[in-house]
Parts: sequence; C-alpha cells; structure tokens
Amino acid sequence: MTHANAPAETPPRSTLVVTAHAGDFVWRAGGAIALAASRGEKVTIACLTFGERGESAKAWREGRNLEEIKAIRREEAEKAAAVLGAEVRFFDAGDYPLVASAELTDQLVAVYRETQPDVVLTHPVDDPYNGDHPAANRMALEARILAQAIGYPGAGDIIGAPPVFYFEPHQPEMSGFRPEVLLDITEVWDTKRKAMECLGAQQHLWAYYTDLAVRRGVQLKRNAGPNLGLAHTTMAEAFMRPFPQIAKELA
Amino acid sequence: MTHANAPAETPPRSTLVVTAHAGDFVWRAGGAIALAASRGEKVTIACLTFGERGESAKAWREGRNLEEIKAIRREEAEKAAAVLGAEVRFFDAGDYPLVASAELTDQLVAVYRETQPDVVLTHPVDDPYNGDHPAANRMALEARILAQAIGYPGAGDIIGAPPVFYFEPHQPEMSGFRPEVLLDITEVWDTKRKAMECLGAQQHLWAYYTDLAVRRGVQLKRNAGPNLGLAHTTMAEAFMRPFPQIAKELA
Amino acid sequence: MTHANAPAETPPRSTLVVTAHAGDFVWRAGGAIALAASRGEKVTIACLTFGERGESAKAWREGRNLEEIKAIRREEAEKAAAVLGAEVRFFDAGDYPLVASAELTDQLVAVYRETQPDVVLTHPVDDPYNGDHPAANRMALEARILAQAIGYPGAGDIIGAPPVFYFEPHQPEMSGFRPEVLLDITEVWDTKRKAMECLGAQQHLWAYYTDLAVRRGVQLKRNAGPNLGLAHTTMAEAFMRPFPQIAKELA
Amino acid sequence: MTHANAPAETPPRSTLVVTAHAGDFVWRAGGAIALAASRGEKVTIACLTFGERGESAKAWREGRNLEEIKAIRREEAEKAAAVLGAEVRFFDAGDYPLVASAELTDQLVAVYRETQPDVVLTHPVDDPYNGDHPAANRMALEARILAQAIGYPGAGDIIGAPPVFYFEPHQPEMSGFRPEVLLDITEVWDTKRKAMECLGAQQHLWAYYTDLAVRRGVQLKRNAGPNLGLAHTTMAEAFMRPFPQIAKELA
Amino acid sequence: MTHANAPAETPPRSTLVVTAHAGDFVWRAGGAIALAASRGEKVTIACLTFGERGESAKAWREGRNLEEIKAIRREEAEKAAAVLGAEVRFFDAGDYPLVASAELTDQLVAVYRETQPDVVLTHPVDDPYNGDHPAANRMALEARILAQAIGYPGAGDIIGAPPVFYFEPHQPEMSGFRPEVLLDITEVWDTKRKAMECLGAQQHLWAYYTDLAVRRGVQLKRNAGPNLGLAHTTMAEAFMRPFPQIAKELA
Amino acid sequence: MTHANAPAETPPRSTLVVTAHAGDFVWRAGGAIALAASRGEKVTIACLTFGERGESAKAWREGRNLEEIKAIRREEAEKAAAVLGAEVRFFDAGDYPLVASAELTDQLVAVYRETQPDVVLTHPVDDPYNGDHPAANRMALEARILAQAIGYPGAGDIIGAPPVFYFEPHQPEMSGFRPEVLLDITEVWDTKRKAMECLGAQQHLWAYYTDLAVRRGVQLKRNAGPNLGLAHTTMAEAFMRPFPQIAKELA
Repeated sequence: MTHANAPAETPPRSTLVVTAHAGDFVWRAGGAIALAASRGEKVTIACLTFGERGESAKAWREGRNLEEIKAIRREEAEKAAAVLGAEVRFFDAGDYPLVASAELTDQLVAVYRETQPDVVLTHPVDDPYNGDHPAANRMALEARILAQAIGYPGAGDIIGAPPVFYFEPHQPEMSGFRPEVLLDITEVWDTKRKAMECLGAQQHLWAYYTDLAVRRGVQLKRNAGPNLGLAHTTMAEAFMRPFPQIAKELA
Repeated sequence: MTHANAPAETPPRSTLVVTAHAGDFVWRAGGAIALAASRGEKVTIACLTFGERGESAKAWREGRNLEEIKAIRREEAEKAAAVLGAEVRFFDAGDYPLVASAELTDQLVAVYRETQPDVVLTHPVDDPYNGDHPAANRMALEARILAQAIGYPGAGDIIGAPPVFYFEPHQPEMSGFRPEVLLDITEVWDTKRKAMECLGAQQHLWAYYTDLAVRRGVQLKRNAGPNLGLAHTTMAEAFMRPFPQIAKELA
Repeated sequence: MTHANAPAETPPRSTLVVTAHAGDFVWRAGGAIALAASRGEKVTIACLTFGERGESAKAWREGRNLEEIKAIRREEAEKAAAVLGAEVRFFDAGDYPLVASAELTDQLVAVYRETQPDVVLTHPVDDPYNGDHPAANRMALEARILAQAIGYPGAGDIIGAPPVFYFEPHQPEMSGFRPEVLLDITEVWDTKRKAMECLGAQQHLWAYYTDLAVRRGVQLKRNAGPNLGLAHTTMAEAFMRPFPQIAKELA
Repeated sequence: MTHANAPAETPPRSTLVVTAHAGDFVWRAGGAIALAASRGEKVTIACLTFGERGESAKAWREGRNLEEIKAIRREEAEKAAAVLGAEVRFFDAGDYPLVASAELTDQLVAVYRETQPDVVLTHPVDDPYNGDHPAANRMALEARILAQAIGYPGAGDIIGAPPVFYFEPHQPEMSGFRPEVLLDITEVWDTKRKAMECLGAQQHLWAYYTDLAVRRGVQLKRNAGPNLGLAHTTMAEAFMRPFPQIAKELA
Repeated sequence: MTHANAPAETPPRSTLVVTAHAGDFVWRAGGAIALAASRGEKVTIACLTFGERGESAKAWREGRNLEEIKAIRREEAEKAAAVLGAEVRFFDAGDYPLVASAELTDQLVAVYRETQPDVVLTHPVDDPYNGDHPAANRMALEARILAQAIGYPGAGDIIGAPPVFYFEPHQPEMSGFRPEVLLDITEVWDTKRKAMECLGAQQHLWAYYTDLAVRRGVQLKRNAGPNLGLAHTTMAEAFMRPFPQIAKELA
Repeated sequence: MTHANAPAETPPRSTLVVTAHAGDFVWRAGGAIALAASRGEKVTIACLTFGERGESAKAWREGRNLEEIKAIRREEAEKAAAVLGAEVRFFDAGDYPLVASAELTDQLVAVYRETQPDVVLTHPVDDPYNGDHPAANRMALEARILAQAIGYPGAGDIIGAPPVFYFEPHQPEMSGFRPEVLLDITEVWDTKRKAMECLGAQQHLWAYYTDLAVRRGVQLKRNAGPNLGLAHTTMAEAFMRPFPQIAKELA
C-alpha cells in the first residue's frame, strides 16, 4: 500500500521499531530497516534497554561494570543504527528482567504520536528463552492502541492503526514463530552485514545471522515463481503479521 | 509484487480459482475476480461440480431433475462469470460428496500448466458444514505442487509457486477462518452485486453477502490508518494466506 | 439446569455481567440480559470503567472534558440497563488502560459473594484491538475463583462454581472467538434494540449489531433441526463457554 | 432443548450412536444411552465392525477364528445394548483397518434418514492409538451432512442438523479431547456397570471405566455450584460438542 | 543424560521443585522426588505458600485461624518431604492470590544458584481452576532464565539451562496438559502413598491420586513395548517437557 | 531406556526408518542412523519411492527417462545407506503423488513384524510443500498400529509400541515442526557428510544441511547446562516425539 500518487507535501513514510535490547534491531530487522532507509524513509528505533545484564556476557566476563557495559552497548548500537540509516533512542528501562509498566508504555505512546508510524516492527508474543522480548511486545502493542485514542492524554496527534510485523526470534520454532512475510533484503545485505559487524561483543552471531539470511532466502525462492528474476543468492528476513493485511490486489 | 516495469510482451497476470460448486466463486471471491478483470488480467474458474445435489435445495423442492438442475446452475454460473469478466470451466465431478481422485487432480494439473497462474484462490482447509469444500482445497493444493514438478507427466510448462488465498467460508469461526488479507472491493462492488443477482436460486444470500462485505469493510478500516482516503462505506472480502508472502517492502 | 422443582423460597436466579466499558453489556449481551430479566431473574452488571477515554471518541471530538464524558456514559448505560431490566454498578477504575489490580479484584469478589451468581458473563480472553477487555476477563475469572474459597476474607457466603460465558468481541475471528452457544433472543430483540438506542454516542453501531444478530440467527438455524418452529428471522447472540457444561441430558 | 409442550403425537426423541467397534458404545457412552432410554427415548447404535481383529486380543490368544470372534463380540454387544435399552445394528465393515468408503457412508445416510436423530454420538476426530475411531468419526459426520440434502438420493425424509457429541477416547489428552459436557449418569450407573459386565472379553476394563466415571464425577462437582444436591459419589461421562449449542437460556 | 562416568568428586544430581502450595509436590511429583532421592540425589522443594487460604477448606470450616492453618500445612508438608527424602523451604508469599513479584522471583534466583539444579519441576502454564499455579510457573521459569545470566546480580554461580518438567494439574484436559513423559514410579509407590498420608487435611485425595497413578501406569504400558518386564500394576506420573530434550540416543 | 544389563542373547536394538523418497533418510536422519549403527544396532530403511518424479528435477532436465532416474536414485541411496551402516529397501510405490493404500500399508506391517523395531523414524504429519511426506507418515503410523494386533493377519510376531520420532522437514516452521528432541550427532558427523555426498543429484543441499546441523547444534547447547563437555561445534538433528516418552528418570 504505497501511496504513489500522494501529493508532494506528504512526509516520508515512517517506521517505528520497538525492541528490548540494543542488538535486537540489527540481527532481526537490520535488512528491513536498511531497505526502508534506502528508499528515503524515516526509521526510529525505540530501544527499551541496553541489554546490559542479559545480553552482555562477554563484557561481564571481562570484568566491566554496569555503567561501562551500558556505554559499550549504546555506542555499538548507535554505530549500527547509523550504518543502517536509522535513529535509535534509548529508554534505559533496565533489562533482565524488563518490567512492563504504565510509565514506560506512556513514553512509547509519545513516540508513536511523534513519529506517526506507517509500519511498526517488534518482537513476537512468545519467547521461552528471554522474558524481556515478550515484555517489549506487550508494551509496543498496548502503546499502539492507546496512541490511537483521542481520549488518551499527551502531546501529539493520534495515530491510525499501522500494520505490525514481528521479527524473527533466536529460536523460531520454540517461540511459535511462522514466517508469514519473507522480505527480500538482497540489495541491502552488505549494509546489514556492516551493521552486524558494529556489534563486536557478539561476534559469534555474525555467521549465524548470515546463514539465517541465506536460509530465509532459499525459502523465499521456494515460495515464489521461477520467473521473478531473483538473485542467485537471495537474502531474506522473515516476519509475522498479527493483524490483517489491507490490500488493493491479491499478490 | 506487481510487475509494473515488465516488458510489453509479458502476458497479462493470470488468476486461477478452484471451487467446489457453481456459486462459490461469486459469493466468496466475486470482488477479487472483478478487481483482477478490471485491471485487464485473466481469470479462470475451475468449477469442480455444479452444486447440483448439495446447493440446489430450491430446485429440488420445485421438482426439477438432476440434469435440469445442472443446466440451471451452469447457466447461472456462466452469466455471473461473464458479469465478473472471468472464464468458467465445469468439471462435472459430482457433488455431495465431491470425492477427491487422482484423475480429477490430474485434470487440475493440466489447468495449472495451461493457465500459469500468478495467484490461486480456493476454499480453506476446514468446513464442518460441507465436506466438498475441503475436498476441493486438497485437490487444488496437491495439483499446484504436482504442476511444479518437471517429472510429473502432461502437457504444458511447469509452473512456479503461485501464492494461494483461501476465500471466506459461510461460517468462518467454525471453519478456523481468520481474515489475514482484507481486499478493498469498493470500486467493483456493483459488479459483484450484479453477479450475485445472476444466482436466482439463492436469492436469500444476496443480502447476506452484502452485509458481509460491509462488515469486512468496517474491519478493513479498523485495521488501516485514518488518512487513507477510504470510502465512507468500504466494501471488502477476507482471505487467508497459507504460504508466506514474498515482499519487497513491509506495508 | 433450571431448577423447576425448587421450593418456593428459592431466590430468583442471578446473573453477573463483568464488563470493561459502559456500552459492552448492551452490544454483546443485551439479549441474554433481557431474556434473563424477562423470566424474573436478577441481573447485575459490574461495569469497571465508563469507557471514558477509549470508547468515547465522538464526545472528545465535541470538546467534552473527562468528567462530562463519564457522566454522559453513565447516564446512557443506566438508561440501557433499565430498559433491559438489569442493575448496573460502576467501579470507575479508569480505562485505556484498565489496569488489573488486587484491590479491584477484591471488589469483584465482594460482588460475587453478594450476588451469588448462577451465571457469569464477561469478555473473552483475547482482544488484540482493546487491552481493557482481556484485563476485565482476567479479573472476572480470578475473582470467581477467590470468591469460592472459604479462606479468602471478606463479607458474604462463598459461592459455587457458576458457569461462565464469554460474549462476542467486535472482531471475533481475530480474538479467537468461536460460537459455542447460540442464544435465541428473538423474543427480546425489540428490547435489545431499544437499549442500543440509549447509546447515542455510538449510533453507527446500531445497524452493525442488528446485522450481527441476524447473522447469528441464521447460524443458529443452520445448527438446528428443521422442525423447531423457529421464527423466520431468528435473532441470536453468540457465546463461548470456557468451562464444561454440566448436563442431565445431551441436547 | 426438550420439547415439553410438544403435541401428543410427537415421536419419542431419537439418539443415534455411530461407533467403530462392538464395545465402544458401552465404555464410552453407556451412561448417556441408558439415560436416554430411561426417559423412554429411542437409541440406535450403528456398530460399523465387531472389533474382531483389533479389539479381541484375548479371543485370538485363545485360538478362536475370525467368525467365532465376530459371533462372540456380536453376542456380547447385543446383550449390553439390551441392558442399556438400545437397539444395535452391525455393519460388519471389517476393522483394523476400518476403511472409509462411499458405500458405507451411504448406508449411514439411510440410518440417519430412518431414525431421524435428535442427538448423534460418535468418536472424536483424532486417536493416535486407533485409526478406526477417526474413520468412524469421518463417516458419521459426512453422512449427517449428506442426509440433510434433499438432492442426495435415497429413501426417507431429509434430516435437520442434530447436535453431535464426541464421547471420550481411551487416552483423552493424547487425542485432543477436552471435556466440554459432563453428563451426570449417577442414576443409571448400575445399568452401565451391568452392561460393561456383558463384555467378558475385556474384563480388565470394568474397573478402569468405573474409575473414570468417578473421576469425571469429581470434575462435574468441581464445575457446579455447591447447592445442587449432587450425590456424594456422582458418576459422569464426558463429551465434546463440535457444533454450537442452541440455547433458550444460558445455564 | 546421566553422567555415569563422571569423576568421583561430582556432586550428586540436584532437583529443584517450585510449587505454589504445600501439598502440590506430594500429589503431583511425589514419585519423581522419591525416585531421585532413592538414587542418592538431592531434592529441594521451593514452596511459595502454605496453601493456607485456597487449599485448606477443611481447616477453615473447623474454625482454625490463619496462623494455625499455616502451621498445620507446614508440619504436614515437612513430614511428607521427609518421607520422600527431600528438603522443603517455605517462602510464605501468601496464596489466593499468589502474586508474582520481582522480589519473590529474585529469591528464587538465589535458590537456583545455590542448588544448581540438573532438573526443575513446576506447574504447567495454564490452570483455569487455580491462578496460583500459573503464577508459580511464571516465576519459576523467569528465575531460571535470570539465574543463567552473569549480569544478573546476586550470590552464587550462574547456572546452565536445566531441563524443565511440568507436573500434572488436577484437571489435565482443561489445563492444556498432555503427557509427554511417563515416569515409572512403581518401585517408590509405597513411599509416595506414605507421603500422601501425611496430608491429613486432604484425605479425600489419597484414593484419587492412587487411581491416577494406576491410570498413568496403564498408559505407560500402552506406550511401551511388550517385552520390557514391567510390573503387572505399573504406577506412573505424567509430565510435560516445555524445552527440547537433549539426547545421545533416540529411545 | 537402554537395556545395558540385558542377557547376551538379546538381539541388537532395531531401528526402522520409513521415508517417502530416496534422499530423505540422509538429509533428515543420517546422523541418527549413523549413531545407531555405530553402536552395533540394526537399521532398516523402508523407502517407499525413489523420488523419481518429484525430487529429481536435475535428472529430468538432463533428459533422463523414468527408469534411468529410478536407477540413479536407487544407486545413490544404496551407497549412502552403506556409508551410514544401514540396509535400505525400496517399495517403488510411485511418487508425486505417493498414494496411500491398504496394500502398501500391509507391506509395511510385514516389515514391522520382521524387524521388530525398538525405534521408528518417519516424516511429520504435515508438509504443505510435499504431499508425499504426509502420506508416508500416515502409512507408517497405521502400519505400526496394525502390526501390534494379534488379529491382523500376516507372518511374524506382533510388535510392541515402539517410540516414534519425526525427523525435520525442509521448511520446519511451515510444517508445524517443533524440535522436541535434539540429538547430538557430532561424533558421526563426518559419516553423515559422506553419505550426503553420495547424493550427487542434490549437491546444492550439502551446504544447506551442514548449516542446519550447526544451527541445531547451537540450539542443543542453548538447551543444555554449561558443564556438559560439549564439542565447540556441536552438530545436531532435531526430532518430534508424537507419543509420550517412557522414562525411569527425569533428565
């Protein structure tokens, strides 16, 4: 549902990414973000925590303290966001556990109303290996509803009902994840790879998420016609779509 | 995934609709068909039976015999297809029960290879009120797989893996139907209504499926942003999508 | 499980309806309430919020303030309850979001023990479009369990385990709603319609919920035998039943 | 939905039980059958096979041949049906595997039209331990639909859409069985026990199904109010209900 | 995955049981506990509440007060634990409702790190009859994740990812419980029975859980080969396994 | 449940693998097979078709005819089986579609009774990309039940109820596959790789299934404790377990 004929003053499309930890947006949605940015769209990443306790084992083993680790993760994430062409905002809400609260949800409502997203990306509903991801999901979804209500107080205009996409968790089959949308990220793959390489603390994941992109690319080709002119090595990211797609055409 | 920049010699997009009974394509997918036809695309309806036993109660009560009823249903369906801009083919496989067979599936493989569909529409997997619908679903899906295999004998080129959409059954919640795609059919609504009115034997369904289109339209608007310039009374059809969507953009 | 032979001093059957917002009991269960009241039974509606923020867009757009809106919604709901023959109690717990709390749950326990319900109606477990509905569900179910425990403090006698019915959400297929009980409300339809018309702020829903009642009536007839003497236009409401039905007869 | 005020000439209510093997109706629905019979209703058991291969291990180990075993099972089942007050009909379709066929389904259509059931009992959809049970389920459901169609040939009047109940399989949790209706069979328990004792070949199951009835009785009480005057030891049978209940009252 | 060849200094295997109420570990996992203890392993039971409000109806009816009831339940549970060969610790967090909190979860993290469990047992995810059980489940799972993170503060070494088993709820089919592991407890059955008999307040459950063990034993035999030399009356307990089993051999 | 102390005359453990096409046992279960064989166990592969139509696109494109392709696939599969240490038997039942039949199922019953399997491996229930796999699953499961019945005719002794494992399909999330058992195949990885390399017609899958083994190995380690002495690069295969595990110990 691009708006090809929209008048010239239309602001660029806006994507909002709500994640639990500093690295999530790179591994799970770096391609989608780079793709949107490459089209001149605005991408805002709401990063609820730095992943300072739960996703920074290497730094803890090296003897860093909490503040140092937050600083490292922030710096890495900012670099990666810059590579992808997005803006990242940190909420420093504390991870492991990330606790859902009315205050944090209200802060997200403000972001929704400010950024007026056309698309929202966040974690899926379940993740038996990491409770922070479902907590981020719940707040992202609740804030999206509240931001639509004219009666909910706060600055900014109310929003519509932007489509939501859940990005892929680390253990998809254990988290009830089923690829419902396969996004072709071949043309921005190098950018995603560069962004991954900003995350020095999790170097073992570089190859892992490269392999995943190959595998999702194979799946994309298996679900497409033979004449689509796809690249020999198509790279892809998988998403779920919890709300119905609005369409002008079946395709 | 429209192919706007495809070279001039590209054949028009092709849609294949596989249904159990003569009326199904009108009530459940008339909007989608009219929409495709209005864009100059080719739509082929493979109608496995006339619905002569299971969907023609009125004619039986009026004392018609089997051949008469088939002729009535055929004529109605041909008229409706013409209104929608589609071609309908009858397989006369016998309904109530429609029995899945290798022969009938093989005939469908031939249709797939001949029409080279870009999109396939059929019944969903379950329908506790009508066993013919799931039988049509199974054969439509199996033929789609066989038609992709170079080793499967028969005329015509093999096909790619066209996306499949399940249209809405009469009792959606009882049939495990969840709207995954809401198609805006407002601009072809009058055409769909006219096609419905070709089905004189089931006049009580005209209002029923008009109400459904209104209701799905309300749902479409509830799942869209406020600024999309949707019609006051948006009419819609709902579909499921059993295979992943292939996308160049999240929207 | 009527108690036709119960001694004269038996109190009338009691129905407890636990809802999130002021209008819910009318749209979703107005028929069930009117039916019970028409048999001389007692119906108590526990209305946790007025729906002042999330369900009053029209009033906000007209420039009303929070207290005015609460007053409007209260007045409308009281009128509708009177038409249906029920008593409504407001808890003014604040909507959008309705936050589940031990205090509010405890207030519900007191209502359970006071009203000693034979039947409980509330929202279903899921509603991706409105988080207040699941919150009301959780508190209604938890209070029902606590009210059964002799060890849980508070006034009043403990209760049994009354059957629970979930009424229909606005988007049933998206909320995991499957009609498990279809209630024939034909004879009280006019009353329900009158109650709906008390809700002036949501006039666009009058036709919507009339159509729904027709559609559920068609479904009721499709699930019943042909000889039941049902009205030509049967009106119905749909419910889920999360706990097993206790029966003396299969029917 | 009893028809207390029906005119005198109304035939008694009719129950149709469709089972795979000779013993199933006793273990799984003996209480429901005895209860209906005790109210003067008519109960017809369509027994598709004798369970001669799959459910007669003891007889095979004793060296009986196929015909002897069929005769034994028939005799036992007829005795048990007589104790319960029902008529049993054998189709001798061959078990292990029971193969679904159009012919057998057509024979069931004839039984539906002859008996005009108000209630249908059969096996649930799944049973990973016995493929004959799902096969019986599929034919029972398909015949029920065909028997409703005026266009389906054969003797007898078409039927309505009688409610269906699935009785409990041997391993409920492994078969997706969830008790949706708990039927109080306390008053006919002695009759069910006597019927079980007609099945000499499966004596080890007598205690097993007595324990099950106790356990389902405990569950019944846990799902009922405290003041229902239930027997100290309530005996119960559990059922699923695949189609919506039609109700005049929520209870 | 026993470690038969581990060096002599290896500490004995450690099992951690996290339960909501004082009696749960006996009814639901007494066999598993006795079996582990009989092999010289260490079993620690983290009992979050005494079940003083929700599971002590008899004592309340006898007029005991809260402190008396807690003392009774504690004494019974300690006796039962001693019979089984396990250590029980009480957290006195208050039941009906047991409220999940960061503080209580943190206390559980400490227990995980202290006991370094090789196996964890707890309640399943759902129980529509008792909200305390799911609350215990959530905290047990969350603490298990937090205890693995080097960045989560607190005493003791981090833990690995011990396998988790959910024990059987009182109404398994209503709680989404499917037996995934059937544990043969025949050789410790007498011990489990003795432990059950320590729970004088719930004498009606002795026979109930004996019958359950018989029934699960029958199921165990039905899922095993004929040559396993199983006892005539095999007694068993059923468990779910939410995380994948790690195996060196398929068996 | 190894039988370490079984008397000397016990036959070696027996594994039966039932697959649709010639390559399946290598890609999906080559590690499990090699592991069993490396312990001196007997492994029999029942290969229902050669995959001559549906899994041999390369050969068809090269202009081979049906018989040539069958011969190629047979030779490749026999080589791979020899590398793994297993015996392979071909049923030549015809693929694309593989049609389930009583005759083929009966042939499988004979194999069950002859091989007396302690473990059975086969395809999972669903595969929307290949209907032959579910067909093989259904026959494998049905034959397993029939082979247990003393009343089912045919040579050989009846079997027990061997545990069943479903191996991983090509698109796990789309086929309802959830890893329930992760088998450590590190020590036989080289053998599996060598067997894969026997399948020259599908060379593009060598890297694909190597990557999968790495990924399942990472998942294995994430679901195990840190002190298990696992190899740095653990290789694994994933399986589902449709029947309950019989256990002497929770681990």
